[in-house]
Amino acid sequence: MTTAEEAAKLDREDSLAGARDHFVLPDGMVYLDGNSLGALSVDVSARLAEVLAVWSRQLIGGFADAGWWDAPLRVGDRIGRLFGAAPGQTMAADSTSVQLFNALIAAARLRPERRTLLMDTGGFPTNRYLTASAARLLGLDVREAPLEEFDAAIRAHGRDLAVVTASAVDYRTGELWDVGGLTRTAHDVGAVTVWDLSHAAGAVPLTVDQDEVDFAVGCSYKFLSGGPGAPSFAYVARRHHDHLDQPLTGWHGHAEPFAMAPDYAPAEGIRRYRIGTPHVLSLLTLDTALDVFDKYDIELIRTKNRSLGDFFIACADAHLAGLGFEVVTPRDADRRGSQISLHHPDAERLLAELAERKVVGDLRPPNLLRFGFNGLYVSHEDILTAVLTMRSLTQ
Amino acid sequence: MTTAEEAAKLDREDSLAGARDHFVLPDGMVYLDGNSLGALSVDVSARLAEVLAVWSRQLIGGFADAGWWDAPLRVGDRIGRLFGAAPGQTMAADSTSVQLFNALIAAARLRPERRTLLMDTGGFPTNRYLTASAARLLGLDVREAPLEEFDAAIRAHGRDLAVVTASAVDYRTGELWDVGGLTRTAHDVGAVTVWDLSHAAGAVPLTVDQDEVDFAVGCSYKFLSGGPGAPSFAYVARRHHDHLDQPLTGWHGHAEPFAMAPDYAPAEGIRRYRIGTPHVLSLLTLDTALDVFDKYDIELIRTKNRSLGDFFIACADAHLAGLGFEVVTPRDADRRGSQISLHHPDAERLLAELAERKVVGDLRPPNLLRFGFNGLYVSHEDILTAVLTMRSLTQ
Repeated sequence: MTTAEEAAKLDREDSLAGARDHFVLPDGMVYLDGNSLGALSVDVSARLAEVLAVWSRQLIGGFADAGWWDAPLRVGDRIGRLFGAAPGQTMAADSTSVQLFNALIAAARLRPERRTLLMDTGGFPTNRYLTASAARLLGLDVREAPLEEFDAAIRAHGRDLAVVTASAVDYRTGELWDVGGLTRTAHDVGAVTVWDLSHAAGAVPLTVDQDEVDFAVGCSYKFLSGGPGAPSFAYVARRHHDHLDQPLTGWHGHAEPFAMAPDYAPAEGIRRYRIGTPHVLSLLTLDTALDVFDKYDIELIRTKNRSLGDFFIACADAHLAGLGFEVVTPRDADRRGSQISLHHPDAERLLAELAERKVVGDLRPPNLLRFGFNGLYVSHEDILTAVLTMRSLTQ
Repeated sequence: MTTAEEAAKLDREDSLAGARDHFVLPDGMVYLDGNSLGALSVDVSARLAEVLAVWSRQLIGGFADAGWWDAPLRVGDRIGRLFGAAPGQTMAADSTSVQLFNALIAAARLRPERRTLLMDTGGFPTNRYLTASAARLLGLDVREAPLEEFDAAIRAHGRDLAVVTASAVDYRTGELWDVGGLTRTAHDVGAVTVWDLSHAAGAVPLTVDQDEVDFAVGCSYKFLSGGPGAPSFAYVARRHHDHLDQPLTGWHGHAEPFAMAPDYAPAEGIRRYRIGTPHVLSLLTLDTALDVFDKYDIELIRTKNRSLGDFFIACADAHLAGLGFEVVTPRDADRRGSQISLHHPDAERLLAELAERKVVGDLRPPNLLRFGFNGLYVSHEDILTAVLTMRSLTQ
């Protein structure tokens, strides 16, 4: 069941088959790196033309008249919906690094009597670096544990834990962690959670409100296809809004920003989480990229993504056996995001040669070939092509 | 000398007369709010089309092949040149609020044994809020003084001062401060300076290297015309690079970002000051906006801006006498940026009625009508029109 006929059959039955038309992709390219940078939406060009027209005609008036000022909140709500956040708890602005720093300190300040931050050992570099930086500023200790042992580590640190921070989907292996379960364990010991949803948002329909997640951040240039350096998103559960005490107290988070008051007085709700002026061109590009999620339900996207992953593993088993590859991503679709990573000693060479043949994945140390599947524009045929091309390069 | 003939004569003699063709502005609008949001450059539309083409064709490859990864450094150098920074000391990314926070903590860490941050009383709100936030994180005290008394205040705090932070141009009054002189005084007592150049960059040719400024930040959507929410710029003097210890330790500032190493090891030079992924669409829009500064020297721009300010004051004296206006900006062109502010008890109403007549300025508390002059697209005729329209609204 790993033939071209099977791929074609799966693609014929695909409920997202029309979605690829919403994206501009090079002919013949198999793009399995949408978890690094998502593809361009066909509507972005017209949207940017409209934004430039507003800038040229209304100039500073665009902030009020064209909704630029409130765009971080409006765009934030559109993203939050995809991971189970009710409106008024998510904003879109700044970079993920900046938002993560802001969230870690705000989270730790909710537990001022506690001394420890716990992070996942395999977290993305920026998360590790910024957790260390936040801890240093607050005089806290950082401890780490692999996510397999995270539940036990949370219980072991117990009442000393201020903050627990981890990624919902491991950026190397693609493993999907139990956000709800780990959040419950963290709450059992009284800690606050900061989740990185970078590799989940737009690919996996999480339920952050229901799971009582405290803080979340993530990239919107991956599965949300918001464009190169698209603004980050940041979620804070409503129950924390009145106590939110973040370090990046910019004027956009002030209760009355245009009063230009000498002292900081935070706005109500998620609005107080704002920092400086939003990067309007990047932000409204992201806004347009999100339109496709109004047409295709995130549950449907998840179903397609699982099917792509299952098919990839089946193809790898059938066509790559004995060629030095090892699937490092969980075979159980419930336990992974929308990515399959293969270990191979020649990963770097293979990825370069794949790219020459228009099959795009990316390299992550040590020797991982990482392939992300955005079901909105990746087909089962693409998967088979990628695996057969890998086979041709290793035989 | 405040007649239409005089305005026409000054505009005929204007060495920047052709520069307005580089901008798209509405017919008949007198836009004196370029110090809030600069006008759109005619070349931005084509540049964005090019960026979208790279995104659609090269996808993630754009970061290396199209120079997106290094754009913050390249664009930073182009901006730094305008205020006297040699290459390799300026980067462009994030918001001014974020960059200011990063700079304040990095600056304070250069003087770990000192306890006090001094800021200007009339600073922009975000500067005040973030100075307070940085001080709280580091356990330092914040003191403030009006810029008229800054030199004396620096000397009074003496060896207890870690950081001195102020704006080169006051956002309300437009007063230009003595960046070199105050930096020397700060250095006399061993303090580190963090200057906000938001209302100077692109309007006033500063000499930060020569003045031995330590850190500087600023907005690039004002006189640099980088677009709504254009990325901020941040300067760090080369002599501090090896000791730079900022709180926002994102992966783009790592010595080997793609090694995905578990621990932070900063890159060399200004590169270590980077945080997360740059907002490419906003950043390359700014890059294009800077092209006009390659054609028109910043000294020429300053000359024109001074002339516009002098003419505005002359027109106000001639046409607004006895109508309740007071010029609060220094009359001496050497002592102001490129802005004239008028106090009037009906400022809010007047600005709204001016806007209806296509004369755009902005309101700053208390009751200030603020008019910014970007000589690249503002004419002496515009100035006379603005003043005569104000006259018509107050008679």
